[in-house]
Amino acid sequence: MNLLKQIQIVLVETSHSGNIGSTARAMKTMGLSHLRLVSPKQSIDEQAVALSAGAKDVLEQAQIFNRFDDAIADCQLIVGTSARLRHLQSSLIEPRACGELAMQRAKQGKVAIVFGRERVGLTNEELLKCHYHLNVPTNAEYGSLNLAMAVQLVSYEIRMAWLNLTKNMQNDQQNLPLTENTNISYPSAESLAHFFNHTERLYRELGFIRNDAVMLKLRRLYQRCELETAELNLLRGMLTAVEKGLNK
Amino acid sequence: MNLLKQIQIVLVETSHSGNIGSTARAMKTMGLSHLRLVSPKQSIDEQAVALSAGAKDVLEQAQIFNRFDDAIADCQLIVGTSARLRHLQSSLIEPRACGELAMQRAKQGKVAIVFGRERVGLTNEELLKCHYHLNVPTNAEYGSLNLAMAVQLVSYEIRMAWLNLTKNMQNDQQNLPLTENTNISYPSAESLAHFFNHTERLYRELGFIRNDAVMLKLRRLYQRCELETAELNLLRGMLTAVEKGLNK
Repeated sequence: MNLLKQIQIVLVETSHSGNIGSTARAMKTMGLSHLRLVSPKQSIDEQAVALSAGAKDVLEQAQIFNRFDDAIADCQLIVGTSARLRHLQSSLIEPRACGELAMQRAKQGKVAIVFGRERVGLTNEELLKCHYHLNVPTNAEYGSLNLAMAVQLVSYEIRMAWLNLTKNMQNDQQNLPLTENTNISYPSAESLAHFFNHTERLYRELGFIRNDAVMLKLRRLYQRCELETAELNLLRGMLTAVEKGLNK
Repeated sequence: MNLLKQIQIVLVETSHSGNIGSTARAMKTMGLSHLRLVSPKQSIDEQAVALSAGAKDVLEQAQIFNRFDDAIADCQLIVGTSARLRHLQSSLIEPRACGELAMQRAKQGKVAIVFGRERVGLTNEELLKCHYHLNVPTNAEYGSLNLAMAVQLVSYEIRMAWLNLTKNMQNDQQNLPLTENTNISYPSAESLAHFFNHTERLYRELGFIRNDAVMLKLRRLYQRCELETAELNLLRGMLTAVEKGLNK
């Protein structure tokens, strides 16, 4: 089961159809596909389709509800978003924790993430129907997050949690560390030692190296960047080019 | 010092002024204020101001540059964003790690996060001037992230890292101070450009460099290891030592 399919993005009484389109695009970039609209003020019009870019399918599959309660009826976890959160201290949750929680709970059932009206957010009555209240830690002096931007941030955190979960599941199955960048070749310690000796010999001849400090610094530098074989060959080629130049 | 002030959001040849306005709004919600524009295709017009909502001040303070190099010249860490990242495997970074890195490096100097053109992103030449390449882990089937949305995500991760850092610093002050790497200095993009030019000049003279491939590899190598100022000075000293040897 793709857990992302369990996530329902719910927009309540959205005023601007452009925001619905941008929301669809934001969702799809993060792999979410289920959009629910509660009494939108504008229909899914040209403006919505234009701003959805390639995410028209999300708009076409969007479900429209007259009542908030119907839009969340089949969901087992409801998270509501609002900037007005005076009396909701105990149920506040930030996007990162929200993403993790949503993925945990998606194993059992549908999860609704609810976004309120552009200007006034969710009503107190609606907020009270939510298990958690999402709070994006915005600038205290300017917290004016656009609706679709808020959807983008939460969808991103849901995707990050999903990717982590998927990675952990694969690790569990294979019981092996994930190997990255498997097509890059790295030199042996011996090749690296040859390179350092070659460098030291040449720059001692040139009178540049007079004590151990230089080689210590170079070792530290090249070991930190984990030289690849191709890069080591290049650097050795440069040493040889200098030697040839000097012997002319 | 407010570390968020060190972050420079750089937009390269943006086509739509609306995206500049939305970017300003996205930045300000996360407490960022420094916007740099490289040859924008449209000026900061009514559309930009309208979409910036209450973030007009960010637009008013935006700096405009003709050349990419000038826009990043005083920055010590450059992160470029692009969806086209085939050959950049080793320098890829995700938004979360990018936020943490940006905050660590903001202690020493300015940090540029660079966003390319709406349709074609950054050029290869521009990407090669970046230490890291930001990759948002989007839906493999649909990665069409709007420009301002990408800025929003990265700005959010920078803010999250900043909030964590601020929290930790408060803890440190109360308990035990253990600050790492505070005395490392990093070179500016301009100093790094001088080093690459110097290297290319010398090894072309030696007949070792005959095409662009060598410099591409060297740039990639030294940008990946985030050369420190002391290391850069050492490498430049080595170039000078070779030149002296050749002129004897």
